[in-house]
Amino acid sequence: MTDNDAPPTAPSEPLAPPVDLLAIAAHRDDVELLCGGTLARMAAQGYRTGILDLTAGERGTDGSAQLRGQEADAAAAILGVTARRNAGLPDAGLENTPETRRLVAGFLRAFRPRVVIIPYMNGRHPDHRIASQLAYDACFLAGLAKLDAPGAPHRPEKILYALAYREDPVKPSFVVDITAFMETKMKAVHCYSSQFDGKTWGGEVFPGGERLLYDQVRMHAARYGSLIRTEYGEPFYIAETMRVDDVVTLGVRSI
Amino acid sequence: MTDNDAPPTAPSEPLAPPVDLLAIAAHRDDVELLCGGTLARMAAQGYRTGILDLTAGERGTDGSAQLRGQEADAAAAILGVTARRNAGLPDAGLENTPETRRLVAGFLRAFRPRVVIIPYMNGRHPDHRIASQLAYDACFLAGLAKLDAPGAPHRPEKILYALAYREDPVKPSFVVDITAFMETKMKAVHCYSSQFDGKTWGGEVFPGGERLLYDQVRMHAARYGSLIRTEYGEPFYIAETMRVDDVVTLGVRSI
Amino acid sequence: MTDNDAPPTAPSEPLAPPVDLLAIAAHRDDVELLCGGTLARMAAQGYRTGILDLTAGERGTDGSAQLRGQEADAAAAILGVTARRNAGLPDAGLENTPETRRLVAGFLRAFRPRVVIIPYMNGRHPDHRIASQLAYDACFLAGLAKLDAPGAPHRPEKILYALAYREDPVKPSFVVDITAFMETKMKAVHCYSSQFDGKTWGGEVFPGGERLLYDQVRMHAARYGSLIRTEYGEPFYIAETMRVDDVVTLGVRSI
Amino acid sequence: MTDNDAPPTAPSEPLAPPVDLLAIAAHRDDVELLCGGTLARMAAQGYRTGILDLTAGERGTDGSAQLRGQEADAAAAILGVTARRNAGLPDAGLENTPETRRLVAGFLRAFRPRVVIIPYMNGRHPDHRIASQLAYDACFLAGLAKLDAPGAPHRPEKILYALAYREDPVKPSFVVDITAFMETKMKAVHCYSSQFDGKTWGGEVFPGGERLLYDQVRMHAARYGSLIRTEYGEPFYIAETMRVDDVVTLGVRSI
Amino acid sequence: MTDNDAPPTAPSEPLAPPVDLLAIAAHRDDVELLCGGTLARMAAQGYRTGILDLTAGERGTDGSAQLRGQEADAAAAILGVTARRNAGLPDAGLENTPETRRLVAGFLRAFRPRVVIIPYMNGRHPDHRIASQLAYDACFLAGLAKLDAPGAPHRPEKILYALAYREDPVKPSFVVDITAFMETKMKAVHCYSSQFDGKTWGGEVFPGGERLLYDQVRMHAARYGSLIRTEYGEPFYIAETMRVDDVVTLGVRSI
Amino acid sequence: MTDNDAPPTAPSEPLAPPVDLLAIAAHRDDVELLCGGTLARMAAQGYRTGILDLTAGERGTDGSAQLRGQEADAAAAILGVTARRNAGLPDAGLENTPETRRLVAGFLRAFRPRVVIIPYMNGRHPDHRIASQLAYDACFLAGLAKLDAPGAPHRPEKILYALAYREDPVKPSFVVDITAFMETKMKAVHCYSSQFDGKTWGGEVFPGGERLLYDQVRMHAARYGSLIRTEYGEPFYIAETMRVDDVVTLGVRSI
Repeated sequence: MTDNDAPPTAPSEPLAPPVDLLAIAAHRDDVELLCGGTLARMAAQGYRTGILDLTAGERGTDGSAQLRGQEADAAAAILGVTARRNAGLPDAGLENTPETRRLVAGFLRAFRPRVVIIPYMNGRHPDHRIASQLAYDACFLAGLAKLDAPGAPHRPEKILYALAYREDPVKPSFVVDITAFMETKMKAVHCYSSQFDGKTWGGEVFPGGERLLYDQVRMHAARYGSLIRTEYGEPFYIAETMRVDDVVTLGVRSI
Repeated sequence: MTDNDAPPTAPSEPLAPPVDLLAIAAHRDDVELLCGGTLARMAAQGYRTGILDLTAGERGTDGSAQLRGQEADAAAAILGVTARRNAGLPDAGLENTPETRRLVAGFLRAFRPRVVIIPYMNGRHPDHRIASQLAYDACFLAGLAKLDAPGAPHRPEKILYALAYREDPVKPSFVVDITAFMETKMKAVHCYSSQFDGKTWGGEVFPGGERLLYDQVRMHAARYGSLIRTEYGEPFYIAETMRVDDVVTLGVRSI
Repeated sequence: MTDNDAPPTAPSEPLAPPVDLLAIAAHRDDVELLCGGTLARMAAQGYRTGILDLTAGERGTDGSAQLRGQEADAAAAILGVTARRNAGLPDAGLENTPETRRLVAGFLRAFRPRVVIIPYMNGRHPDHRIASQLAYDACFLAGLAKLDAPGAPHRPEKILYALAYREDPVKPSFVVDITAFMETKMKAVHCYSSQFDGKTWGGEVFPGGERLLYDQVRMHAARYGSLIRTEYGEPFYIAETMRVDDVVTLGVRSI
Repeated sequence: MTDNDAPPTAPSEPLAPPVDLLAIAAHRDDVELLCGGTLARMAAQGYRTGILDLTAGERGTDGSAQLRGQEADAAAAILGVTARRNAGLPDAGLENTPETRRLVAGFLRAFRPRVVIIPYMNGRHPDHRIASQLAYDACFLAGLAKLDAPGAPHRPEKILYALAYREDPVKPSFVVDITAFMETKMKAVHCYSSQFDGKTWGGEVFPGGERLLYDQVRMHAARYGSLIRTEYGEPFYIAETMRVDDVVTLGVRSI
Repeated sequence: MTDNDAPPTAPSEPLAPPVDLLAIAAHRDDVELLCGGTLARMAAQGYRTGILDLTAGERGTDGSAQLRGQEADAAAAILGVTARRNAGLPDAGLENTPETRRLVAGFLRAFRPRVVIIPYMNGRHPDHRIASQLAYDACFLAGLAKLDAPGAPHRPEKILYALAYREDPVKPSFVVDITAFMETKMKAVHCYSSQFDGKTWGGEVFPGGERLLYDQVRMHAARYGSLIRTEYGEPFYIAETMRVDDVVTLGVRSI
Repeated sequence: MTDNDAPPTAPSEPLAPPVDLLAIAAHRDDVELLCGGTLARMAAQGYRTGILDLTAGERGTDGSAQLRGQEADAAAAILGVTARRNAGLPDAGLENTPETRRLVAGFLRAFRPRVVIIPYMNGRHPDHRIASQLAYDACFLAGLAKLDAPGAPHRPEKILYALAYREDPVKPSFVVDITAFMETKMKAVHCYSSQFDGKTWGGEVFPGGERLLYDQVRMHAARYGSLIRTEYGEPFYIAETMRVDDVVTLGVRSI
């Protein structure tokens, strides 16, 4: 399942504690870029949040898997997540098979999230496309009583696709105002200095000429914020329709 | 402006009282079909609601303008609206001109709504397409201090397009759960017996064979409800993006 | 290929008899929900119809594979299909590989259908997405003379994607009027009492609050029927364009 | 209503005879380019067909209104239409107003068509966009008993938007096979020698370099034909869904 | 045609000098926001550029028509345009009629542009939607020899729709790199201090919370720049397809 | 990896020489149909071009793998490509796995192209869909320093999806004028006489009744040419936005 020497999650620690909200992505730092502000905000609102990185990032050109692990732990602390786990799947070689689905389903049964954030269905890096589908499939399968995987059956009720920084594949279904958590998000992104310092792009963050990646992340968040008339935002897509209980207080001026 | 003998809004009554939510449509009965459940629910939640019918329906094949006015008053009472007004524009002859925009802007400055519901941008009846654009334009212009129209400048902050019963021109931005107000809505629709009794379709309600219009309205509401996993719903479209403050309690199962 | 103890299609029976129309789906009961009315109508119009279930449903939470097989046989009889076969692929573990494509191609060469109905390209259950692609690929490959699979080469001329009850991924290319066959369809769906009795949803049928699944299926069919102005309908998508030979008798009022 | 010296439809002839299928467009020659093959085929299938040109083409750079009228009569004879009428509205100055809608509604009440073909909703020439909307609105209004227009109320049941030669605004809803009528169509187009001889483009026919317009029309028809696997075709769009009664004989290979 | 006291273009000056590129919009300042960088860049590349403001902005809440005229002249000088003219149509009351089309066509025949930039087809302000259609129609009509308007017939060959700052109605067809002209653009926008100083939004620039409009414009340009991997850009839409002569030097990294 | 007896690329020849532009497709003849004119034009403009066929076509109904290889060499010579290689993957059995991605990445590291043309993401033949994704993934992975594949890391900067002859899945991002190279393209297509002589369709070329495939290819190229107002063209799609440096000389008339 993985070509690392040691299992990414040591046997002495539990697979994962239950959370309300779980973000799953292919590489350490993906989650921070995609939805770091939202994770920080939800934690501040009292929810238990978690992160599942599918790979250890051992094929990245810069840094080592070990260094990226330390960066990931630091970022998780800043975002206030309850637990961050690593599935130890091969970097630059993710596959969506019955075996990997069962592995991820096991983590889902441990985290037991109500809501799961996953990457959007396509992306620059093949791992991102595969991570999205693998995570989705695992969410479904984790709920089957007869699935051959550890843990009690559990199916999240909601899947959110994080869109940020990608090349706008679809109109966002909604944007979360992260204005009050923008600096927290940036601190978490800065943890990955092995990946980003002095860089002008990375991951799905499409670049803006010579502008530093850190500034570029801010620019993109400003743009998404403007969609809901705030300073900074993170965009999400959902396949199902939004439910609204009060049409008078929706906010976001039309005209 | 109108070919009726008498002004539709008598001089002795004020143009309109302020409301939180205003629904504007071309013909009496349009509002009930499009968003009657939402109006009833918002009233029950404590908001002041209003209706502006643009025409008196004098060109309808069945019933007279006077009869339809009585039906409209009865329906308004059932929906709990604060006030229902009629702009007296010509039925089957709506036009979007500087003059009609000023007329409607005057009503908007009297109603002073925070949010306005208007029909979607296209429809079977030309009046519906024109009503949508006319109402939108009037919402914008009502906010101009230098507009030559009665009343103090006022611009609603939000425009909602009601989609119900049309031939699904776009995916709804959101659906309002009207399960608890479905019977109220049906009572309001039943007020228009001159238009609907024994009919199998009407307005934008596309028909279902020999099924009675009243049952067909229920079928459509059931379908929209299912988009948010409830029994009955009414769908809306907005041009701008939704803002979400809590991603954990969105509801509406994905899987 | 399968983790069942016994081969799903016993050696003594032929792989399948030739049909005009074949419906392929992942699980027993999928076909009834997706296109049961259309199968019944086509049989009534004199065509030979068939069903190929890709899995035996052994991972379903309710019922056993054996019980679901009996239910499937009963439903097939009600729909008037010539033959129903089961490919015995693993439930909740469908894969689209050269091997599974060859297996399904073998069934296609036995059924020799002119037209094949398959599920739409995405869905709530991963098996449904994979079933769609696997069935499509097998339809193409079955026509290759040099394919290493049993039977004489045969390629269906037409692929129809069944959309019903999914969350409207695309506008239907066309709807089949099933008004006269709605009760037949419901009888077939009722055969699956182990799956549906007392349930409020199942498969891709997205739910309507507390409404029973049987009633919900009827609601959805009513909505699709209204798209062609009839009482009940089933929707389909095709990738290619429709051919029309008479523009005067298309039916379905525009205005 | 028109700046021509003489009324386009002389008082001694009836406004128009009843037809099954009526094509309405802005300028003489538009109908031939958009749906000439379909008109010829429907006439050959026994239907009565008609054409209503909204303007006399008096602002065209080439030819005179009188010459274009003679060309139109010749083309109509070739297509086998029952009657061709001209509404005499101003060329390059079409407007959609209550007055023009009433005028066109009068022609519709005379022609009494079951099905009407109109241009698609946008186009290169402003007249084409306006003709589409004007014709649609008139179709609706012609059915109102209380409309102030000559003739008995009549509403066509179906509106078809002709797409041919435009820049593919939408995927066609269907294509009509005109292979057997391609030469008839070309003969009708050739009637407009004042407009097309030696030209490389015209109307909405977007050009193909130095290729003659006549050859270009053939190229476009070949492309639309290929959408339904035939030699030549004409494409149409409808807002409502297609109804299908037999899914086995749809034709048009998928794979 | 206008309710100003004096004609906006004084009789002693020619209607307009010929240009290569002409930008048309409803209000003074619209052009700067939409395509100021592109105009500056094209001027720097040696083209003659022009601006046609359709209204004098007399209905704006802030500033007077006279003040806005001075601001517009200053901005035009900064952008290096050859000439800026004002059509004097009524602010907040634009209409697309035969008369206004002829008026604008007259300006087009004077400017004789090869390419015209107009606003996108919809917008927050009704004037913007109408300006787009009016300008398009005038471009077509200006080429008709028999049009009753001053000047020799002239039809621009290309229409570009400027998208910037609108709520992303469509994916841009292309983006122009304005990095080297960003400060020029900002200087031109700053000319409109009566409209923008201290403001957080204006025109179609949708706002970003408390961020100043000037900073918000920069944020939006950064986002559009990132679509082509540069620091700042302005987006455009065209209805027709792009022609490419060299596929090796397209730039804009895919992966 | 392949079921051929001999390795498709003999050990004595280098894997591939560096090129500017590389076209990758599943079967010999796919590249000629999709982008033969563009390859010929780019070669004429001085670029080094290459072709990578993923399979040897051994499962095609007509001809043998050996004969198709000779045809492919002849076509390559006509198109002026620097080198054509064959990856030897199984025909009608393409898979996108870590192994096949590494194999293709090796060829990419040898060819070292700046720009790569691949088939569009879906198609009639499953191999075409898989070829598109496999080639894309390999382009990304070839750039990873730590990828376990031969050759120095290299990532193409640009991916172009060739659309020609498919059923218009998306609007082309741009079209290349191949008018001057149409006969060259046809000569290359004619090389595949084992596949096409006397045929009325093949590959993704959807057919036009009884018209010969060679004529049908010309028809389709004429249609794509018309999108940019030339005689013949080949269409491409790109996921990212186009960059334009001069808006005055874009060509392709709008009106």
